[in-house]
Amino acid sequence: MVVIKRLPRYYRYLGELMKQGVNRISSAALSEKMGVTASQIRQDFNCFGGFGQQGYGYNVPNLYAEIGEILGLNHGYSLIIIGAGNMGHALVNYANLEKRGFKVIGIFDNDAKKIGTTIKGIVVSDISKLEDFCKQNTVDIAALSLPRSEVRDIAKRLISAGIKGLWNFSYTEIAVPDDVAIENVHLSDSLMTLSYKITKINEN
Amino acid sequence: MVVIKRLPRYYRYLGELMKQGVNRISSAALSEKMGVTASQIRQDFNCFGGFGQQGYGYNVPNLYAEIGEILGLNHGYSLIIIGAGNMGHALVNYANLEKRGFKVIGIFDNDAKKIGTTIKGIVVSDISKLEDFCKQNTVDIAALSLPRSEVRDIAKRLISAGIKGLWNFSYTEIAVPDDVAIENVHLSDSLMTLSYKITKINEN
Repeated sequence: MVVIKRLPRYYRYLGELMKQGVNRISSAALSEKMGVTASQIRQDFNCFGGFGQQGYGYNVPNLYAEIGEILGLNHGYSLIIIGAGNMGHALVNYANLEKRGFKVIGIFDNDAKKIGTTIKGIVVSDISKLEDFCKQNTVDIAALSLPRSEVRDIAKRLISAGIKGLWNFSYTEIAVPDDVAIENVHLSDSLMTLSYKITKINEN
Repeated sequence: MVVIKRLPRYYRYLGELMKQGVNRISSAALSEKMGVTASQIRQDFNCFGGFGQQGYGYNVPNLYAEIGEILGLNHGYSLIIIGAGNMGHALVNYANLEKRGFKVIGIFDNDAKKIGTTIKGIVVSDISKLEDFCKQNTVDIAALSLPRSEVRDIAKRLISAGIKGLWNFSYTEIAVPDDVAIENVHLSDSLMTLSYKITKINEN
């Protein structure tokens, strides 16, 4: 289902429309705003039964709820953050996590100076307590915001502890078994795309 | 040139190969590792004259250099960071910036407690000094890691000051003129994709 690549963007965009009080939208209007062809939008939405009505378009709140469900946002997945450095801090404070239905339930680090401190009301735990924590709590996702050199070992421990989702900020490829999902965040990809665009602008 | 979407990934991957001492690779081998069809790879590389040789494949360092140039990484673009919060800190400390040829030359904030502090050797400046700084220095890119409520005003000031590239971490859409490039980083998109994958795994 290739459409998954576009679903988060559709979801974000429909959420913006709802905030603006927009209740329905045509595929043509969505197309223009999102830079995706109208026929692509119709095809994508048909994939999961989100049919627009002739002359009416799409019902924004319904479509938003439907896409949210396909994305699994209704599950209220829990998240732990491994690494209480700058990126870990930024993630705990990232308002969109809660807004999208995710709950941060733990933060771990191996630095004695950080262990016991509190970020947004959550105490930073010793990484040695990771396995105990995973036994006592349902942890769906672990965000990996720790140094590259440590990430593969930690990933193994997380997978052994039964965690099914890794959100990887460490710029290191991690091999995972088939029943574990991973998403790698490469900030530099967008910076390189920006660099490409600037270069084109400067050439003109 | 739709291939631009894939260029940063090709670049990263070829960089990894070079680190491993790999000097040449076939489109078939690249295809397998990257999950892009071999014909797509050949087509992409042909776009910019990166022709493989029959029975030899691609010369990895040449291709790496060529893609880097298309991405504009040889220009050594300079970067300022607006917002010295957690994300701003994470960006200054993000090793890949330098590795990809970008230079952080300034950090700005409006918080008196942050102004005058130093991050990785760079003094945090008062945001009121932004225009002066842009006159006295060549600034190619501004990273926006500040609260949503402030980002549009700052973007206007940056564009007036002649900055051609905005790297936006503020989760707010910003309208820019045709001669200004913008890349929005939406961390929650990858988290939603991960949520989708976990949901699929749990269903099976």
